[in-house]
Formats: sequence, C-alpha cells, structure tokens
Amino acid sequence: MSRLLLNCDIGESFGNWTMGLDAEVMPFIDCANVACGFHAGDPSIMRNTVSLALKHGVQVGAHPAYQDLQGFGRRSMAYTPQEIQDLLHYQIGALDGICRAQGTRVSYVKPHGAMYNDMMANPAQLRAVIQAMAAYGDLPLMLLATRDNRAAQALGDEYGVTLWFEAFADRAYDNKGHLVSRQLPGAVHHDADVIVQQALTLSRGEALIASDGSPLILQANTLCVHGDNASSIAAVQRIRQALTPA
Amino acid sequence: MSRLLLNCDIGESFGNWTMGLDAEVMPFIDCANVACGFHAGDPSIMRNTVSLALKHGVQVGAHPAYQDLQGFGRRSMAYTPQEIQDLLHYQIGALDGICRAQGTRVSYVKPHGAMYNDMMANPAQLRAVIQAMAAYGDLPLMLLATRDNRAAQALGDEYGVTLWFEAFADRAYDNKGHLVSRQLPGAVHHDADVIVQQALTLSRGEALIASDGSPLILQANTLCVHGDNASSIAAVQRIRQALTPA
Amino acid sequence: MSRLLLNCDIGESFGNWTMGLDAEVMPFIDCANVACGFHAGDPSIMRNTVSLALKHGVQVGAHPAYQDLQGFGRRSMAYTPQEIQDLLHYQIGALDGICRAQGTRVSYVKPHGAMYNDMMANPAQLRAVIQAMAAYGDLPLMLLATRDNRAAQALGDEYGVTLWFEAFADRAYDNKGHLVSRQLPGAVHHDADVIVQQALTLSRGEALIASDGSPLILQANTLCVHGDNASSIAAVQRIRQALTPA
Amino acid sequence: MSRLLLNCDIGESFGNWTMGLDAEVMPFIDCANVACGFHAGDPSIMRNTVSLALKHGVQVGAHPAYQDLQGFGRRSMAYTPQEIQDLLHYQIGALDGICRAQGTRVSYVKPHGAMYNDMMANPAQLRAVIQAMAAYGDLPLMLLATRDNRAAQALGDEYGVTLWFEAFADRAYDNKGHLVSRQLPGAVHHDADVIVQQALTLSRGEALIASDGSPLILQANTLCVHGDNASSIAAVQRIRQALTPA
Repeated sequence: MSRLLLNCDIGESFGNWTMGLDAEVMPFIDCANVACGFHAGDPSIMRNTVSLALKHGVQVGAHPAYQDLQGFGRRSMAYTPQEIQDLLHYQIGALDGICRAQGTRVSYVKPHGAMYNDMMANPAQLRAVIQAMAAYGDLPLMLLATRDNRAAQALGDEYGVTLWFEAFADRAYDNKGHLVSRQLPGAVHHDADVIVQQALTLSRGEALIASDGSPLILQANTLCVHGDNASSIAAVQRIRQALTPA
Repeated sequence: MSRLLLNCDIGESFGNWTMGLDAEVMPFIDCANVACGFHAGDPSIMRNTVSLALKHGVQVGAHPAYQDLQGFGRRSMAYTPQEIQDLLHYQIGALDGICRAQGTRVSYVKPHGAMYNDMMANPAQLRAVIQAMAAYGDLPLMLLATRDNRAAQALGDEYGVTLWFEAFADRAYDNKGHLVSRQLPGAVHHDADVIVQQALTLSRGEALIASDGSPLILQANTLCVHGDNASSIAAVQRIRQALTPA
Repeated sequence: MSRLLLNCDIGESFGNWTMGLDAEVMPFIDCANVACGFHAGDPSIMRNTVSLALKHGVQVGAHPAYQDLQGFGRRSMAYTPQEIQDLLHYQIGALDGICRAQGTRVSYVKPHGAMYNDMMANPAQLRAVIQAMAAYGDLPLMLLATRDNRAAQALGDEYGVTLWFEAFADRAYDNKGHLVSRQLPGAVHHDADVIVQQALTLSRGEALIASDGSPLILQANTLCVHGDNASSIAAVQRIRQALTPA
Repeated sequence: MSRLLLNCDIGESFGNWTMGLDAEVMPFIDCANVACGFHAGDPSIMRNTVSLALKHGVQVGAHPAYQDLQGFGRRSMAYTPQEIQDLLHYQIGALDGICRAQGTRVSYVKPHGAMYNDMMANPAQLRAVIQAMAAYGDLPLMLLATRDNRAAQALGDEYGVTLWFEAFADRAYDNKGHLVSRQLPGAVHHDADVIVQQALTLSRGEALIASDGSPLILQANTLCVHGDNASSIAAVQRIRQALTPA
C-alpha cells in the first residue's frame, strides 16, 4: 500500500434525516467508512450506502460507534473493554450482512467519534479494539497516525492485526502528532490550497510544520477527507487530482 | 434431516434484565433462535448466548425482529418489503459478527414475533423474507408448518432457499394447521403427558386431532420448545428423551 | 376562536440532524406542533424549539407519536388503546416539563403521523386519544376536519374535550372530506395562488371543490402549514397576509 | 420533616422484562423513585407504577437517568451541563404527565445511577442539576448525605431548591461519608440486624462507625431501601417497624 488512500465518513443519514453529500463525494474516495446504526445509519440507509460504494468501486469499511444516536457517538461512555469488543463485532457483522446481500464484504474497520478518541487516548481500550479485530478475522484497523506509531504498531503485531494509519489534510497538528483541538484557533484549515499542500506533503512522507513550529513527519496510509458540504467536496476533488500520478 | 430438531427462543435478556432459563434449556435442544438486539438481546447478551450454545454443540440461528424493544417485537409494524429485507440482513449479520468472534457462524434464520406472524399471514412479506435469505447466502429459513406447505415450498424453491417447517407440541391447531389463538380456551397444552404425546405424534408423521376434531398431518422438520420456566424445561427434557432413539 | 389559526409541525430535528426551517416559519404561525422525542425531537432540540416559539409568541402544542425514530412515526404499529394513552401522557408531559423550565406550558395536542391517521381511521383509537386528553387535563385536541365532524364532536363532548379541527390549504380533498392520497395525481397543490385561494375559501367557510367536482364545506378551526423549504414558507407568508384583517 | 422517610427505586421493569418486587415493597415505603424511560421504565410500566404508589399513599418521585437502556443508566456519559438539564426536564415532565392522568403529581426528584454519582463527584454537574430543579419548579432534590453537606446545601440555598439528603442502612461509609466501593470487602451489609441497627442510628442522628473506625454523623432526611428480592424486603419491613414510633 504505497499510495495514500482517501477515506471518508459516509452513510451518516438516519431514517428521514439526511446528512452529508454521499453521492457527490463517493466518486473521489477509495474507502467509505459506513455508519452501522449506533450513531447514525439504519439498515435501509446502510443498504443504499453500500450500493453507492459498489457503484464507484469504493471499499466498504465499518464505522462502529458507541450506542448514542442523539449524541452522534461523540460522547464518551464508560463501556468495559469486553463491551467495546461486543459493540464492534455486532456492528461490523451488521454491515457485513448488508454487504453480503449485495455481493460484497466489509474490508476494514474505523471506530467512530468518542470510540475512536478514547481508543487513541487509552491503551487498554486500544488493546480491546485490536483484540476484537483479531477475534473477528482478517480486517485492517484504521487509526490515527501520530509522531510515533510504534506502541500501536506493537499491539497490532502482537495480535496479528494490520493497521492503517490515517492523517488529516485539513487539520493542524501539535508536536506529538495529535490533532490540535477544534476549540483552538487555527485547528482547522479552510484554505483549499493549504489543504491540498498538506495532502501532498503527507503523501511524500515529508515533514509538516507542527503548531509549535517544529517539523513533524507522519507515517500515514490513508488520508481522511470530508463530504459534508460543497467546499469540502471541492477540496477532496483537488486532493484526488493532486495525488493521482500524471 | 429426518429426526425432529428441537428449536428454542434464546438470548431474550436485555441489559440488566433477565428472561428465560437459557442455561437450563440449552443442554436439551438442537437449535437456539438467538435474539439479535431489535426485540431483545444486546451485543453482550448475544456473546454470552452464542458462547453457551457452542458449549452445548447447539446450532446458532438468527431470530430477527421488528425494531420494537418495548413491545418485544410482538406488535405489527407497517414496514415495506424492502425494509423487511434490510432488517433481516442487518440482524443476521450482527449475530454472525458475534459468532465469528467465537469461531462459529449463524446457521439458520427464524423471524420473531410479529415479523413471523406477518410473514405467515401475508404472501408478499413471505416473499420478501425468502428473497432476503436468497440474497444473504445459503441459510435455511424456519417457518410454520401448516396443513399445506406447498405455497411456501414453491416460494422457497423459486429462490433456492431451504425451508425448515416447525411445529408445536404444546399448542392446539385448527383444521388448516394454524395455531389456535391464545385468546381461546384450550389453545395451550399444560399437561406434560399431552405435550410429549403430541411431540411423538408429530415426529412419526402421524395425524394430530385439530380443534374441530378432524385429523391433521403436519410435515415438520423441527419442534419449537420453550425455556421460560421450570415446567417448560421439564417438558423439553421429556420430549428430548421421548424423541431419542433407544 | 373565530379566525383560522395557522399550525405547523416544528422541532423535527434530532441530535445532529436538522430538518425543517423552524426559525424561518415560526414568525408566521400561531401554533407550533412540537415533536416529543418518539418520532423526532430530543430533550435539547425541544428546549430550543420551545424557546423559539416563546420568542415569537407562538402556542406550544405537543405532537406525540408512535415510538419509531427510524420510521419518523409514519408506520402504523399495533398498540393497544391503553398503550396509546400511555404514549400520549408521557410525551405531552415530557414537552410540558421542557416548557415549565421556560415559564410556559403545553397548550394543545396534535397526534403525529401514523398515530394521527390511525386515530382518524379507527373510532376505538380516537376514543382512546380523547380519553387520554380528558384524563390529562384541559387541553384541546387537534384532528382532521372532514365533511361531517359530528361523530368526532360527539366523542369530544362525551369526555368534555375541546376539539380543534384542522384543514389543509395545499391538499386536495375527496367528497368525504378526506385528503386525497399522495399516491394520486393532483393530491398536493404546488401553485402558491391555488394554496392561498384554498386558505381563503376555508377561512370564509365557503365550499371547496372536492376531487369528484362536488362542493365540500369543511368546518375548520386551524390550517396546517409547512416549514419544510423556502417555497412552503413563502406560501405560509402569503396565507398569513391573506388571512390577516386589513 | 423530622422522621426518616424510606425511599426506594421502583418501576425498573421495561416492556416484557420484570425487575424488582414493586408490589411487595410498596406498602413499606414513603417515597417511590420511579424510572422515567431512559434507563428503565416505559410509559405503560410507569402508569402501573404510579397507580401502585397511589394505592399505598406513597409519594411519586422522578428517577431520571442518562439515556442508556442497555447500561441501565449506570455508565458515565459525557453530557454537557445544558444537556443534563434538558434530560431532567424531559423525564420529570414525562412522569408528571403519567401522574396527572391519575390525579397526582411528581413530588420530588432523585437522579439515577451514573447521573447521581457524577452529580456527587462533580460540582459543575451538581450545579446543573440544581439549576434544572429551580427552573422546573418547586420540587425537592434527593442527593447523598456525606460528612459535610454544606457545599451542596449552599448551592441549594443559592437557587432556592430544597434538598433531601439520603443515607443507606445497608452500606458501609468511609470517613468522608462516602459509600465504600462495592468492589471492597464489607461494602454491603447483609445481616438484617446490622442493617436495622444502622437505620436506627441514622434516625437518631447518632454516629456510625466509618470504615477506618472513626465516628461519622450523617444528617439525613431519608433512607434508601431496596425491593430487589425477598431478603431486602424483609429488611425494609423491619426498618419500617423499628422507625415507627410505638
């Protein structure tokens, strides 16, 4: 996997509520992180989403979450490590059931929202997630690339789980390679030129400039992009073009 | 499949609430119809249930339902045929995810409650269920044996779906081979001798006496038994013994 | 109550999902039918919605529904009459709790979606709703004006419940005064002139032309308007203007 | 309020699942903390519970919780202070709606599970709860009596909210007046004599012996008792008898 895959959160509608421009962004991405019903998505939305991914040859990934529809899976919840594993197996399986009915399968997993953040902040939870992946089968796990991926990589190796590290083209990083909090100024890049430049820098394995001015090299396999609105889709399109070999 | 398999609804606890004597009935059955989270069961309950089934060498079946936790999936809901299919794929897959993590797989499907009743009452819904099974893969569908299974069998054949017809040892039948409504007197047998006798009659392919006194032959592959309480488990034990060749 | 109140379904967002242009339509209506969390709305959305209504001096009505978030309360569900009453008391009370915290109260009730349709189609359910209103206290119930409101009115009188009959300016009626199904051509008026004309006709107590060409007089206390999109809001504005005495 | 009221968590069944011996414990308590649908209880269970409380002249209190049915409201969730207030208003109101339909009203509030624990551990959350109470109206708030209730009392006074401090007869306390964690040995008293003795000591305002051997005086208005099983109900009966003036 040498080139930087573009992954995007997809299928975040629910029932009669629509969110995101899935049909518009799907043509430009490689990997669709599909909501599995616990923070967004429902069985019918999931079917439509998988069908759209198939049409564009996009890999379907499970995007499991805490069970909190009102909070969109963004509120931390005090699950036990065993409960985390159960949540993962249920949701990955549910999406895989929807996939099977269309002749495809789930091909990777990226935890969503608070489940993702808690996994990055808490080694016991990262271990639970990786154990869940190992027990489930042979799917890669997507997680955050930081300055030093070695601890995560060691856990992945211990359980034989492939890790896909992801980076962001539209977010500022601190010198540990963590995302600068959205509460702080400059956390999110809005200028499309800056975003495309950061994508290129990441794809070449060159150093970003962290928020304290120091150089930061992130080893990333995939870039997280956004299909929320017209301007984020325009950015995805430009990133796609910039990353495609002439 | 010549002998009559014993199937039982299992895993109907939810969160902190317990229902049914799963551990007590599991040793005596062949097929566990495991709730998939929409009418009962949650990811952690499901893990425990699958683990218990594995320990006793019992086949794990998906027991999908309408999304109605408060109503225990027993209230009819006006789903479209497409939505029924989506519900099935999601829930079968979810249980299969829990199974995979323990090295087993879902091996058949029996719709629950109102989804089951509506499927038996409404040919369009039975077609939707059978289409869903065909799209999902190669799993048998469990449904009610009636006096004449041919219409259902023709649908199964049309889509290449194996059907397992089930009968009840503790319920009275009318002359069409439908269950007598629980509202009516005599609908449910409580005498263990009567129950065991009906199980034996069914297993030999002999005629039951329908509620109008006429003979009724049911072609059944499986017998539905109950683990709700001590007396139903005593009945299951006696049925198991009676059906086991000496 | 001589003039025609304008009522509108409001507060139909949920969690991170937005629906409807509540802030845009609120200035032009008299009565806000606020979703109570079972088909849409959540406690925080409800607080915002009540606050917006208060700001514009709009009456807050409860818009209770079947418990079916995915189906937006639009799927019939086989509740018992007692369960219907419980659903109503819970949801009216919940909204009233949100109202109290802002110094106001729920001032009427309009069932939503399938609960509304089933109540109009099934006298036993209408009775259950009216009994629930009587038991709760002194709030008016909003329901559909038809050619002959006498049966409903008799039930209201029997239980001492005030009824507010509502009509639609943008829907065609059949000769019984029922809405023409949305499946049929011409069921929904899209021309703003037609909509405003129908509102005026209704407000004057004059006859509409039913779908079979016959005259139809509807006795209505309130007109249901829509805040879904810019064009429906433009229509509301014009109706408001047309109905306001010079 | 000089005598020690007995309060008990009640109405913790859900749909088809039963929990607790509500009918058995109700005759012996003063205050029923009724689950409001977010961790347990549903509109129909709530109606039955309120009806039972009325029959025994027991005060109905709201027992609101985080929205986590699977976790029984016992898992911490990262709600904002505003969201906590919205949860409270919604659930208190919902129960009040059920009460109104039976001619009674909610007469106090006791947060449940993680909402209760987080409120005791986090002053910002206690403030949010007390603000919610003040905004709602004139209901007392039940919370944990500790060695020093002054900080809580000051908050209550600031917002004009009456506080009812509760103590436990069957739990060991540390020297700060916090409950000893259930993980530790001796945290829960099982001997009925010990439980009754602790109830009497608390009711006389005399000192308990904390887990480190030091004396501990708790100023309590109410005692939390349990209706989970036959032995806890026997203890409640004995406490009731012991506290009743001859």
